[in-house]
Amino acid sequence: MALRLDYTNMLAENVPGGIPLAALEAAGDAFARAMAVFDERRGRGELGFLDLPAAHESTQQIRQFAEGAGQAFSDIVVLGIGGSALGPIALRSALRSTRWNELGDEARDYFPRLHVLENVDPVTIAELLGRIELGRTLFLVVSKSGGTAETMAQYLVVRGRLIEALGDKFQRHLVFVTDPEKGSLRRIAREESIPTLDIPSNVGGRFSVLSAVGLLPAALIGIDIQALMAGAGDMAERCGARELRKNPAAMYAVLQWLADTQHELGTHVIMPYSDNLRDVGDWFVQLWAESLGKTKPDGTSVGPTPIPALGATDQHSQVQLFMEGPLDKTVTFIAVGARSTDITIPKLHQDVPELAYLGGHSLGELLDVERRATAGALARRGRPNMTITCEKLDAWHVGSMLMMLAIATVIAGALYEVNPLDQPGVELGKRYTYGMLGRPDARDARQEWDALPKPDPESVV
Amino acid sequence: MALRLDYTNMLAENVPGGIPLAALEAAGDAFARAMAVFDERRGRGELGFLDLPAAHESTQQIRQFAEGAGQAFSDIVVLGIGGSALGPIALRSALRSTRWNELGDEARDYFPRLHVLENVDPVTIAELLGRIELGRTLFLVVSKSGGTAETMAQYLVVRGRLIEALGDKFQRHLVFVTDPEKGSLRRIAREESIPTLDIPSNVGGRFSVLSAVGLLPAALIGIDIQALMAGAGDMAERCGARELRKNPAAMYAVLQWLADTQHELGTHVIMPYSDNLRDVGDWFVQLWAESLGKTKPDGTSVGPTPIPALGATDQHSQVQLFMEGPLDKTVTFIAVGARSTDITIPKLHQDVPELAYLGGHSLGELLDVERRATAGALARRGRPNMTITCEKLDAWHVGSMLMMLAIATVIAGALYEVNPLDQPGVELGKRYTYGMLGRPDARDARQEWDALPKPDPESVV
Repeated sequence: MALRLDYTNMLAENVPGGIPLAALEAAGDAFARAMAVFDERRGRGELGFLDLPAAHESTQQIRQFAEGAGQAFSDIVVLGIGGSALGPIALRSALRSTRWNELGDEARDYFPRLHVLENVDPVTIAELLGRIELGRTLFLVVSKSGGTAETMAQYLVVRGRLIEALGDKFQRHLVFVTDPEKGSLRRIAREESIPTLDIPSNVGGRFSVLSAVGLLPAALIGIDIQALMAGAGDMAERCGARELRKNPAAMYAVLQWLADTQHELGTHVIMPYSDNLRDVGDWFVQLWAESLGKTKPDGTSVGPTPIPALGATDQHSQVQLFMEGPLDKTVTFIAVGARSTDITIPKLHQDVPELAYLGGHSLGELLDVERRATAGALARRGRPNMTITCEKLDAWHVGSMLMMLAIATVIAGALYEVNPLDQPGVELGKRYTYGMLGRPDARDARQEWDALPKPDPESVV
Repeated sequence: MALRLDYTNMLAENVPGGIPLAALEAAGDAFARAMAVFDERRGRGELGFLDLPAAHESTQQIRQFAEGAGQAFSDIVVLGIGGSALGPIALRSALRSTRWNELGDEARDYFPRLHVLENVDPVTIAELLGRIELGRTLFLVVSKSGGTAETMAQYLVVRGRLIEALGDKFQRHLVFVTDPEKGSLRRIAREESIPTLDIPSNVGGRFSVLSAVGLLPAALIGIDIQALMAGAGDMAERCGARELRKNPAAMYAVLQWLADTQHELGTHVIMPYSDNLRDVGDWFVQLWAESLGKTKPDGTSVGPTPIPALGATDQHSQVQLFMEGPLDKTVTFIAVGARSTDITIPKLHQDVPELAYLGGHSLGELLDVERRATAGALARRGRPNMTITCEKLDAWHVGSMLMMLAIATVIAGALYEVNPLDQPGVELGKRYTYGMLGRPDARDARQEWDALPKPDPESVV
């Protein structure tokens, strides 16, 4: 069964503080304009991620590559940051296990462990390199541009270690995932015949989970990537609908945009009630934050602030703030229908009232009841919320959800009138980094950095 | 060396959009009033967490308990949620390893693995219970009230499994951590002689990391809890200072409060540049959100919204939003001075400009340069930020940091004029949960819930 978006609790008719139905209807024009922008971008070939589900041959090729390579390795290590890391992590947690790397061989069906190095912290990297067997490890170096500082630094370290340990066989332990034409990784791959998979040039990093970036690690640990793509394809089709009420991605985008721009509800919490989907939340945070948080040419700064949360866990953390703090948030719950397993709470301590009522219910039921109770309590307090229901946590549904959120992001970009595909705000920090590290082409950045205020001893406690 | 808070980049004199020095000086009165409230609360015995570092005997007792028990078990499982889980997780990641449970026995110095079940997701719980050896596992059941629904549900499931597997020896695998007098866990412990450690009655859940809640799991995996407490005690003393410029907790609280209430900078990002400190960020998010996000008696809703981030990772995710999105955020960086290990990036690919500049630098240096570059770029764009520097990641410094943030939270509560120790906003959701699960004392909640708007098929895509 397909994914559902229930926005009953987003409407002012049901929840004071929500969006009046009339405002939603009046947004029809904005929706139509946004879809026109969407079509334009698509027409210009900018939205490559939409075409991935139909690229059956490429998916098939990734699967075959994984099947060939998978047998030989006990550990896969992704070197990547941002979308290159968040996508694989989200797939691993959603469709395998949140603790995949702790499981024994049998519990992993003899698929390899999958480590994702998404930072350059030497403590983490030294520890991992110290405990894996290099001779049985495959490193996936993932960078669209082929020049990401963090990923290149990791690659250099790993390359050095591989050469040290394995001599001229080191290349067998490397796969590059990068732009089909451009960048230094592509160049090195050509010179050294290192196997390489493409990130299509029109698929940006944070929209790349359904390219080889996500699919190769997923296939290597036995995830059914064809089902993932089928679900994504189905959703892409649904989200072509020109009727707002039939287009879940557009409805999500329009509701969040109205909430932010007309009701000052600009903080957007994403709160799955499923441990497996927590990392999908982090993946979404990147997508929503980096795509929509922009300064426009006229100098105005726009964009919602996404926040990750997990139910029921965060009922004991952030929910107090969501219930009683400033009225500046919407909460999107993600519900899971049938869970792959459930546990009945035994009827013990029947004489203790604080425990007795739990016996006979299942943990899945408790989790679901808590989600509905939290949504209801938020509604009762005039705090708008909505719920995405995923009937089953399988590859088809997860593919469908990722595609829905990616399309929603592009449509939201059109509504906010920003380019959801760029990230100009991170350039300055990068240039300062290059300047401080002495990159010859960054001398001006170094000078600019030197002129910034430095820690003032008067302002240190 | 002690923890430092550098707020150069919070000041309007250095960063447009920041707080004018004059405003900071004018906040002296508010600071004095806040400290008076703080003293009052302390005088009434409400701030038990302040006294924990001086309770040497109790710390000693926890250490002895851990030394006695630790040998016998290969796996420790914490059953807890909210502060009961976030504290132990933060300590494990900060002072052992972010991947502690993936390490082999030798790498763990033969200390046990430490699992923290912080949710009731049956998928996670079934997986863990399926792979640990119950006969070699110790379960710590952690609940201040002894009635937390999620923790009690976990406990009932675990108790059932233990009885099934071990018969009447099951009690040897349970330790309760709960209120010294009240609640059902205490009652059961008395009746069944289950070993129990106290959470002092004046130490609330989210302030409990330095009680047995955090100390017992920490000691069980070999963390030096005496050093932790020494660091915390040192900081508690520093934060008694009546001069704002000498009191890091108060300075942090005052700056964040001024930023929020006078400059509309109410979203507070916490961004360590260290994988080990990522979970301290999540711990802080609970503390800041649940303590300060409140509706006052007059109906106004206040409180900052904390956001967790990780450097350098989130430079490729949320930083675009922090740089260019709405001017509503402050960023607190956490810097680590000397890291326990570092890796030099080898000089390979010297003919490739995008890689060559990295060779010879270390990963730790890169991480540090990126932090400074990001702070500088934020400053350049008029976005206030500050930096907490932790010279070394050891128990002393981590204890010091946790204490500073806990005290800052209580002082911020006084500044916002809310009670930082309660969480009334979560009661409604709890009551609805009880109602739906059929707890006899929650029939009215059930009725109230039944009267709420239910999913309207017209509002589902």
